[in-house]
Amino acid sequence: MKTITIIGTGLIGGSAALDIRKAGFATELIGVDQNEENAAQAVEIGLVDRVLPLAEAAALSDLILVAIPVTAIQKLLPSLLDMVPQHTVVIDLGSTKSLLCEAVKTHPHRAQFVAAHPIAGTENSGPTAALEGLYQGKMNIICEKELSSAHALSAAEALFSVLGLKTIFMQPEEHDKHVAYVSHLSHVSSFLLGLTVLDVEKDERNIFTLAGSGFASTVRLAKSSPDMWAPIFEQNAHFLSHALAEYIKHLQQFHQCLLNGQTDQLYQMMQQANQIRPVLDGIAQVSPVK
Amino acid sequence: MKTITIIGTGLIGGSAALDIRKAGFATELIGVDQNEENAAQAVEIGLVDRVLPLAEAAALSDLILVAIPVTAIQKLLPSLLDMVPQHTVVIDLGSTKSLLCEAVKTHPHRAQFVAAHPIAGTENSGPTAALEGLYQGKMNIICEKELSSAHALSAAEALFSVLGLKTIFMQPEEHDKHVAYVSHLSHVSSFLLGLTVLDVEKDERNIFTLAGSGFASTVRLAKSSPDMWAPIFEQNAHFLSHALAEYIKHLQQFHQCLLNGQTDQLYQMMQQANQIRPVLDGIAQVSPVK
Repeated sequence: MKTITIIGTGLIGGSAALDIRKAGFATELIGVDQNEENAAQAVEIGLVDRVLPLAEAAALSDLILVAIPVTAIQKLLPSLLDMVPQHTVVIDLGSTKSLLCEAVKTHPHRAQFVAAHPIAGTENSGPTAALEGLYQGKMNIICEKELSSAHALSAAEALFSVLGLKTIFMQPEEHDKHVAYVSHLSHVSSFLLGLTVLDVEKDERNIFTLAGSGFASTVRLAKSSPDMWAPIFEQNAHFLSHALAEYIKHLQQFHQCLLNGQTDQLYQMMQQANQIRPVLDGIAQVSPVK
Repeated sequence: MKTITIIGTGLIGGSAALDIRKAGFATELIGVDQNEENAAQAVEIGLVDRVLPLAEAAALSDLILVAIPVTAIQKLLPSLLDMVPQHTVVIDLGSTKSLLCEAVKTHPHRAQFVAAHPIAGTENSGPTAALEGLYQGKMNIICEKELSSAHALSAAEALFSVLGLKTIFMQPEEHDKHVAYVSHLSHVSSFLLGLTVLDVEKDERNIFTLAGSGFASTVRLAKSSPDMWAPIFEQNAHFLSHALAEYIKHLQQFHQCLLNGQTDQLYQMMQQANQIRPVLDGIAQVSPVK
């Protein structure tokens, strides 16, 4: 039985807290949050038992989950590894991995750290966005596992099993490249679709009465928190800018065919895009889309 | 009580048929479909009572719903209005309106026709994709109502009330301009996102294990039928190409900020895009996104 600290009591950390509590995986759940309002709310709705300053919480904890924006993780990790007791395991849950791994690569306590990324979330944020079962059946990526101790990996494995995550292993660059396409690019596409339509239709807000469930689905991620996503885009700028350039290139090609009246080409592009169906069916098997 | 013919027994026509039958709104439901397999299936699963050739069905019908791809509607409408009895009302359910209205603007039987567009659908197609209640609570647009007779409008009103649609009125150009942004552009954005990711990740299909529900939601419309969408894009090329140019411009601006490391600007763009939240909440009130 363990004392577990959650740094960042929002959607990601709060959802983990709910499942940890339900499974009886912790003797005590401590919250750490720079935002005092969030911290108070996390106690009030029972995500954590109490809130402590970082250093006090770190000294008491067997396991620490870091679930804050990725640039904040990058800054915090070295000093956090400086201050934790020798048996304490630190796991980050950030959506980028290269810069975070880089930040502690040569740290004397690197072996106490596990770099992870559970592929789960919603477009909502804050303590009240926490959901029981958010991670159930989802994928999780651990990077540079060869730099984590057997003790740290086994603690992480026990936690991820409680959350219902399926873990695979990857190097940080490989991780960042692939999530640029299958996660970060979708967010950019959705944010900018929302912004484009708002910009163009700004004088006729009532026109959104014409928007149906297709629009809602495509633009859902545009509701996501800039506090979380600006740091992700900044940290993954290299791979994301490649992905975005490819997307823009494809859109320009479609645009040209549309202007030229080349409906056959449009048809072919859509037919190729339809190949995403079995892929999505695969995702649905791993984790039902609600 | 009425004999109703559904031309095109797929998702749109089939879903209407289900609700018409449930409400006892027709004495007989006749199907017309160029695709014999679809026609047979529509009878087999009970969407329609029987299938007839177009001319025979038209001669028997009090009400005819046209639910085929929009270029096919454009071709069919003039000859259909030539052949129908004087009391018969023809309603099209196509997603574009300017060219369809244009095709029959001066037709001697124009008053028997109602140009409509219920904003509803899914990414699936064919008779088996038909859903009871698909139209419940959704928006419907009737164009050029001044050219429809009182008899035709009242028949249309009765039908749309059975389907649970809320009707508003618009001119065809206004309709086509707005749906370019709130419907057609979402489909392009989704089709091309699917295609981009498939193109880039084609040698590493297993990487889709990393894709989560966010990707699935954004790319869902990429599963849509090219048979339905190529004609829509062709017919709405003028307004859609403007919408697409705006979208590409916004993406390029984001891309430039990403390359320049202007995270503050990225943050601002996302914050503006977040304004879509109350809009989507509005859509959810009209029609819950499942």
